[in-house]
Amino acid sequence: MIVEMITGASPKEVDDVVAKAQSLELGVQLNQGTDKTVVALLGSNTGQIPTDIFAVLPGVASVTRIMKPYKLSSREFRSGNTVVDCGGVLIGGERIVVIAGPCAVENRNQLRQAAREVKKSGATILRGGAFKPRTSPFSFQGLQQKGLELLAETKAEVGMPVVTEVVDPHDVDLVASYADMLQIGSRNMQNYALLTNAGKCGLPVVLKRGFACTITEWLLAADYLLAGGNNNVVLCERGIRTFEDSVRFSLDISAVPVLKKNSHLPVIVDPSHAAGHYSLVPAIARAAIAAGADGLIIEVHPNPKEALVDGLQSLSPANFAALMEELKPVAEAMGRYI
Amino acid sequence: MIVEMITGASPKEVDDVVAKAQSLELGVQLNQGTDKTVVALLGSNTGQIPTDIFAVLPGVASVTRIMKPYKLSSREFRSGNTVVDCGGVLIGGERIVVIAGPCAVENRNQLRQAAREVKKSGATILRGGAFKPRTSPFSFQGLQQKGLELLAETKAEVGMPVVTEVVDPHDVDLVASYADMLQIGSRNMQNYALLTNAGKCGLPVVLKRGFACTITEWLLAADYLLAGGNNNVVLCERGIRTFEDSVRFSLDISAVPVLKKNSHLPVIVDPSHAAGHYSLVPAIARAAIAAGADGLIIEVHPNPKEALVDGLQSLSPANFAALMEELKPVAEAMGRYI
Amino acid sequence: MIVEMITGASPKEVDDVVAKAQSLELGVQLNQGTDKTVVALLGSNTGQIPTDIFAVLPGVASVTRIMKPYKLSSREFRSGNTVVDCGGVLIGGERIVVIAGPCAVENRNQLRQAAREVKKSGATILRGGAFKPRTSPFSFQGLQQKGLELLAETKAEVGMPVVTEVVDPHDVDLVASYADMLQIGSRNMQNYALLTNAGKCGLPVVLKRGFACTITEWLLAADYLLAGGNNNVVLCERGIRTFEDSVRFSLDISAVPVLKKNSHLPVIVDPSHAAGHYSLVPAIARAAIAAGADGLIIEVHPNPKEALVDGLQSLSPANFAALMEELKPVAEAMGRYI
Amino acid sequence: MIVEMITGASPKEVDDVVAKAQSLELGVQLNQGTDKTVVALLGSNTGQIPTDIFAVLPGVASVTRIMKPYKLSSREFRSGNTVVDCGGVLIGGERIVVIAGPCAVENRNQLRQAAREVKKSGATILRGGAFKPRTSPFSFQGLQQKGLELLAETKAEVGMPVVTEVVDPHDVDLVASYADMLQIGSRNMQNYALLTNAGKCGLPVVLKRGFACTITEWLLAADYLLAGGNNNVVLCERGIRTFEDSVRFSLDISAVPVLKKNSHLPVIVDPSHAAGHYSLVPAIARAAIAAGADGLIIEVHPNPKEALVDGLQSLSPANFAALMEELKPVAEAMGRYI
Repeated sequence: MIVEMITGASPKEVDDVVAKAQSLELGVQLNQGTDKTVVALLGSNTGQIPTDIFAVLPGVASVTRIMKPYKLSSREFRSGNTVVDCGGVLIGGERIVVIAGPCAVENRNQLRQAAREVKKSGATILRGGAFKPRTSPFSFQGLQQKGLELLAETKAEVGMPVVTEVVDPHDVDLVASYADMLQIGSRNMQNYALLTNAGKCGLPVVLKRGFACTITEWLLAADYLLAGGNNNVVLCERGIRTFEDSVRFSLDISAVPVLKKNSHLPVIVDPSHAAGHYSLVPAIARAAIAAGADGLIIEVHPNPKEALVDGLQSLSPANFAALMEELKPVAEAMGRYI
Repeated sequence: MIVEMITGASPKEVDDVVAKAQSLELGVQLNQGTDKTVVALLGSNTGQIPTDIFAVLPGVASVTRIMKPYKLSSREFRSGNTVVDCGGVLIGGERIVVIAGPCAVENRNQLRQAAREVKKSGATILRGGAFKPRTSPFSFQGLQQKGLELLAETKAEVGMPVVTEVVDPHDVDLVASYADMLQIGSRNMQNYALLTNAGKCGLPVVLKRGFACTITEWLLAADYLLAGGNNNVVLCERGIRTFEDSVRFSLDISAVPVLKKNSHLPVIVDPSHAAGHYSLVPAIARAAIAAGADGLIIEVHPNPKEALVDGLQSLSPANFAALMEELKPVAEAMGRYI
Repeated sequence: MIVEMITGASPKEVDDVVAKAQSLELGVQLNQGTDKTVVALLGSNTGQIPTDIFAVLPGVASVTRIMKPYKLSSREFRSGNTVVDCGGVLIGGERIVVIAGPCAVENRNQLRQAAREVKKSGATILRGGAFKPRTSPFSFQGLQQKGLELLAETKAEVGMPVVTEVVDPHDVDLVASYADMLQIGSRNMQNYALLTNAGKCGLPVVLKRGFACTITEWLLAADYLLAGGNNNVVLCERGIRTFEDSVRFSLDISAVPVLKKNSHLPVIVDPSHAAGHYSLVPAIARAAIAAGADGLIIEVHPNPKEALVDGLQSLSPANFAALMEELKPVAEAMGRYI
Repeated sequence: MIVEMITGASPKEVDDVVAKAQSLELGVQLNQGTDKTVVALLGSNTGQIPTDIFAVLPGVASVTRIMKPYKLSSREFRSGNTVVDCGGVLIGGERIVVIAGPCAVENRNQLRQAAREVKKSGATILRGGAFKPRTSPFSFQGLQQKGLELLAETKAEVGMPVVTEVVDPHDVDLVASYADMLQIGSRNMQNYALLTNAGKCGLPVVLKRGFACTITEWLLAADYLLAGGNNNVVLCERGIRTFEDSVRFSLDISAVPVLKKNSHLPVIVDPSHAAGHYSLVPAIARAAIAAGADGLIIEVHPNPKEALVDGLQSLSPANFAALMEELKPVAEAMGRYI
């Protein structure tokens, strides 16, 4: 951490900074410039100390953090790639994992049909929402417990592990008793009560990026899960909020190589929520794999025209089958398979 | 809702749109242009119908919503201003309400001293966090239950109603048993489990804006509270995430007149979290009142240099007293008092 | 264009909207809802009429544009793909075009060496800046006229067409006398004096996206060029400004399929300026091709450590050669070659 | 400037950083931490040295700039407030300056009527656009030379200094021969050819903020004007691009105190372009003054319903007169007058 004093800071003000640093057991080195003093604070845990502690002192012009604030999710903490096991399917290995299924579980037939179709085309994990966070209180909120039961039933019948979202910290155990992997959605990325509980359940967790959160904040949220003892965390980029209005969210493709450089966790991409329109999903899906993503999560509905939620961004089974064919050579170009 | 067909859409495709609208009991009027057909869908509840239902149909080029999607929080639902009663202090009336206190409750002395100082300078409601949502799992998370007890104790002693944040849906009743008003923080604005529970407790609620949520999404979140039967909702603008990096968040000053135009709910402003630096707080606080805000929520710490959380954005008691003097003539210029 | 009247608008107010529309020779159709009147305005040029003309009338609640405002660059204007010829190299055809070279022309040897290296690895057009727009007036501003001469000399010697940036409207003819294609940079995308002049020169133009401009604004800027009679326009996505701070700009990968859907113009991607760091360039470059881009423009410097401008985002010749090998199978996966 | 080496950087890599710094005549101090080395580079001009020069060296993890990159516009360069004289009207003094007039000069009567009305209500400088930068090539582009003549004529007749926009670097002298102050618009804030020429003309310049530029970039653009010898620069905040869609641009109210803290230049605010709707202009105008702005620039049209450009954001003369009355007590609350 680097503390820049204002021009004309008094020796007393510099001494106070030094004393505060020493009280925190940080190493201190003074850099005396022509105009101003710059104090370097050294220590392996400066990433976890708030900059405010120094910024608030008299005579301080600015405080700059050099160490990254996240820790357990960083490559510095673990240099090798983490591979997450979701009901026998490995995420982060050589095979590109495709998770597919409807946005919301609507009824037995819809889910079963979706599951059979996506499995036939090569998807290896089934997705489906039982608890749906909706912007309006007047919208369909999901089948809840009944949806979880249908997921478990379909999983047994079709033979695919299942991932589904949890939105209430007190539902973690309930959802975990039905699913193979939990999903924490974008609007809950900084719901710390939820993160804390999910960190304690035994299941792997897909942590979607908050749509207005930096990659640093995302990895700090992952640290909540990892700090709870849960090492099986999958990061999912799903688009960020920008000024561009031709899509729902702007898929941050650079997040893939940035995460691969700074974190050991596997990275998947959700092209459906980013695009908001089924016609844009294939291009984004191909790009994600070419950028180095370990998998995709794609919305597929047996009949998008009748979907209760997000029909416009759902692929039909035929479109999904066609996309899977397109993805194969891209995966091969990356030295992987699908 | 306006459905624009593509150039060359077939009569069958237009008919399908009409049939779908009629199945939802919407009025339909066809507009036959030179190049394309535009279908207007009419009805008082089109704001609550997802545009996807039509956008996904073959031959549809775009669907545009005209009705605003929020309802209970709108001025169309209630034309007069709502005035919220927080332990006897009215928010939304002629008097500008100033809520002040420390970011986090740290101990009895800190809270008591803060309460006395801010009351002396004219604040009428005490704030203080017992449950702190923190970006890093390694940061101070608040005194929790103990913090609530200190708030209740200080309230009795100093004689000010108290507002404090709730972060877990299952803590709503607990927090409500100590506080006069609940706060839902920015990161939880779309935590629907929390909104639903807070809508059912009897207390007024301050709903902070999600830092990357539009005003429309914010009013939809308010609808969750109102739909639960809670009419005492106060909206709090606290800055949005933009590319500008000289402040923590960019205070969206236009939100004040936009909300006053579209909603009947009272509006307050939090200059402390937006600025991120105490030296910027006074200018933003004055601007908020001049823009028409009904109140302010300001962080004040007896000794910002020793604050465990957000010291840099906290005012000292002396600075707060000076600010209150600055605010008086601005309130008068608005035909109000403080 | 759809004009929504306020609830309770008077018949006179509705009549005024109708009269104004008729004075502009628009077709008018009234939609009488239960609560309010909605007026549909029809005509093939409503995209070019400002919404303000109606929004300012008494009794109007909102005006919504349905027609896209851009015209000449739209797929509706021209359904087939435009292929641009840059000195014999076709952009927008089956072959993926790679434009490479240094950010700034520094001297004869640097440019010659860069040109030879990138040509050897498969680049087909040489880039190099002679006029450099710089955020600080104290930074290196480019070799200007001398730089143009070196570009022409190197082009002749190495045998590659050349693209270079023009920043002053009155330099268009000068730059055009040396280059095969002009580049209009991100900061000048809405410099209309420059666009107007570039539209009249005979050369193809690469139009970079303004880093905070929507795709609609970008295509409107392309309309300036096309309206001047210049049909040879190449769109270049180079990243947009968002809150994310791990890269210089967030590459908007969705822009590629959105442009392909809405415009007939070829699309290339600049991974170097978006990433701001050479280590992120390969992933973004691969993603761009997988998303359907027609080409790339990449910064390569013979010795990035000694570069006068943007060394950190420049590839070394060895890294560029390695990247070209990576790109080949991705192009093949897309049914193209490089 | 602070250079952080990677963990495990070799002594040779550290030496190379030191050598590079010494070649630039920077002071160097090594900070040896437990895990890594941090090199502090000291010197009064490190703000002007690109960080890339060091970031590109092997073994470097990050480079952090501490000195602000702008110079001539900073308070460190000049501690007192600059007061700009525009045809006898002082901007930056005790009196709040209101610049008003139509968006575009349309004809003699419109401009004359606007000028008389705004002067009567207390505006002291007349605005009016002769050269209009428009997003679409099919929109009205302004009266150009004829508009300048009308401005000069009206100025003489009504007796108010005049400010108008210049968009082409080669029109600077022409515009300067008619106007008292030049305006550089938001889309041209980084048009360096224009800035360079405007820096050399003798007139004061209003520099509007680029709608997606940071305050740092804005002050760097001001440095271009100041470096040309022009000390009479007025900064104008006019809203930034964010995700919020209830206004055209989000007025960045914090920019006012941030600029006052970091720069000596006067600051004005344009509420009209930010709001995009006349009904929001008064609240933003009042807030701007309360935040400490030195003036306002407001669009007023004799008949907004007939305006050729931006009618929706223009005040009528009656609304402008009412606003001026509202602003007086706010100015007084700030210890100023209007």
